[in-house]
Amino acid sequence: MAFGWIDEQARLRRRAGLVRTLRPRPAESPLLDLASNDYLGLAHHPAIAEGAAEAARTWGGGSTGSRLVTGTTELHTELERELAGFCGFEAALVFSSGYAANLAAVTTLAPHGSLIVSDAGNHASLIDGCRLARGTTQVVPHSDPEAVRKALRTHEGPAVLVSDTVFSVDGDAAPLAAYAEACRERGAGLVVDDAHGLGVLGDGGRGAPFAAGLAGAEDVVVTATLSKSLGSQGGVVLGPARVVDHLVNAARTFIFDTGLAPAAAGAALAALRLLRGEPERAARARAVAAELHARLTAAGHEAVRPDAAVVSVRAPSPEGAVRWAADCRTAGLAVGCFRPPSVPDGISRLRLTARADLSGAQIERAVRVIGETRP
Amino acid sequence: MAFGWIDEQARLRRRAGLVRTLRPRPAESPLLDLASNDYLGLAHHPAIAEGAAEAARTWGGGSTGSRLVTGTTELHTELERELAGFCGFEAALVFSSGYAANLAAVTTLAPHGSLIVSDAGNHASLIDGCRLARGTTQVVPHSDPEAVRKALRTHEGPAVLVSDTVFSVDGDAAPLAAYAEACRERGAGLVVDDAHGLGVLGDGGRGAPFAAGLAGAEDVVVTATLSKSLGSQGGVVLGPARVVDHLVNAARTFIFDTGLAPAAAGAALAALRLLRGEPERAARARAVAAELHARLTAAGHEAVRPDAAVVSVRAPSPEGAVRWAADCRTAGLAVGCFRPPSVPDGISRLRLTARADLSGAQIERAVRVIGETRP
Repeated sequence: MAFGWIDEQARLRRRAGLVRTLRPRPAESPLLDLASNDYLGLAHHPAIAEGAAEAARTWGGGSTGSRLVTGTTELHTELERELAGFCGFEAALVFSSGYAANLAAVTTLAPHGSLIVSDAGNHASLIDGCRLARGTTQVVPHSDPEAVRKALRTHEGPAVLVSDTVFSVDGDAAPLAAYAEACRERGAGLVVDDAHGLGVLGDGGRGAPFAAGLAGAEDVVVTATLSKSLGSQGGVVLGPARVVDHLVNAARTFIFDTGLAPAAAGAALAALRLLRGEPERAARARAVAAELHARLTAAGHEAVRPDAAVVSVRAPSPEGAVRWAADCRTAGLAVGCFRPPSVPDGISRLRLTARADLSGAQIERAVRVIGETRP
Repeated sequence: MAFGWIDEQARLRRRAGLVRTLRPRPAESPLLDLASNDYLGLAHHPAIAEGAAEAARTWGGGSTGSRLVTGTTELHTELERELAGFCGFEAALVFSSGYAANLAAVTTLAPHGSLIVSDAGNHASLIDGCRLARGTTQVVPHSDPEAVRKALRTHEGPAVLVSDTVFSVDGDAAPLAAYAEACRERGAGLVVDDAHGLGVLGDGGRGAPFAAGLAGAEDVVVTATLSKSLGSQGGVVLGPARVVDHLVNAARTFIFDTGLAPAAAGAALAALRLLRGEPERAARARAVAAELHARLTAAGHEAVRPDAAVVSVRAPSPEGAVRWAADCRTAGLAVGCFRPPSVPDGISRLRLTARADLSGAQIERAVRVIGETRP
């Protein structure tokens, strides 16, 4: 029977306790949210909702076509100009998702005959970009500039280093300055995904590359998402205008995808303007993360010191992590639960996100619940 | 210099006349639109804009996380239930784009050791799905059930046939019934992308698989987009509940992507409900296509008889196609222009889309302009 093999896989998943299920949430969730990636607490801000609503009324429900046919509106251009300006890059190109942006950046910047050096902790979308690219991929140990240097030395011709700026599982930052140095020694390009850095790191949330002094560099390309700090949907590639022109001409997830919906563009633009006006939100997200980490560590939990807004807490086992997260939920707290195969090292974790709008009392309550439900 | 090789590629593109540029459109375009994929004319319908606006106000600007963490709202579930019901399938799963839905369906349904038979006319997103999948891909001549049969006979073990239902370049329909028959002879699964069929083909726009009597079959999986007939953004996979469960557990573009924005879900839901209430829109889109084709053929153009809402007109050369489309634009008519490398056979075309809300006078004007600007 067609697809018959699926049942055996489902059975194995059930036996391993690794079944994933969807839990639809209501509009007004009673849970305290430390699970979303809404780092600045903007997803539900009235100005962002109004940005989406106004864009849908003005520009329609969808963009109606590929960005190269009818899918580019003046709203897209405005968003791209403001994103580039804010992050300090010459040009920007917006996609329907961060996943699509990553596939585009990696595949178009790693042609046949090139080398891709890929950090072992990279996000699935960067990994899929490497797999789709025509270049050859060499995976190097996580956050190891010497390993990058060694890998780049094995190759003549075009090369890129591909890395997250902040890794999604543990929330640790990549050694960006050292990565850039290793690339420059060999004339290699640096492609980094700032999904968890934009809005949180750098002056007023301008992102990790800005903080590392790499914004606007001709050998640096940054991807980011509009769906985390900016509370919307979509992805963006930031870089030199000539690189962005190259993507317009060559990126399959740009050319053969419908343009980002006007509502998503409008919401992201509203969020960006709000962040410009309230730059302290970025620092607040970092401070909340630091406080969460300090309190958790003081309570005896094994938590990774956060470099951005993600706080990772080690769990004893996949089953333990699932039970822990479930017990938190029962006690009114939503936390993320990362376990195999979504973690690179097989270690299960609770994943907490520090929203800029969490109050001291909410942080205290979260830490108390996590302690009381510890398996 | 990093990315130095890009300049040489740009030079080659310029010399070949194949440079792609973005043309941002204003909110109120003065052009008559025969270029978008807004087949039912719903993208600018007030009910769709209101669906987006209301969803953003109620659910926020973004879904805030992966569908498996915080990114599934009751709105997503509602949309999935109604899409499945409308198209006649047991279950549905919504993605951030049709591209992401295709990557998900192909990669998860073609595991290591399996065979993927892929129609030579398939969309880029299906091709990228084949390239990412662990199975082995065999490309067969376009719309050739005998070739499919032959390919399937070469393989023991899991196999799928992957095809568009309506091909985006020429607007021709795949031989779905014959494809299904060829698959069933070998116990192979059928995975079809109904991007250009949903809303246009089948009773009231229920799509090409519904029209072919394949809706709800346990060996058929359908992908579609929310960004064409439904005037929004996003993609969907429709199929048996066990297949959808498998995707929830295994599809990387589902697990590692932020859930579809509420505004996009709300707009698509509003469009679907509007289509249910006004099923004649689907037939009208087909009638407009037929009329366009008849008038163009009568005027001496070489146009492909449309099976859905896309009408393809042959152009003399890539440069001729570009000039033709540009001259149409100068005369107030927006048409698509497909040329290498976006066309599988190297033949450049004007690509016209028949919107359900085009009036007789508009069709007449479009045909007149196309004739007057013919290179």
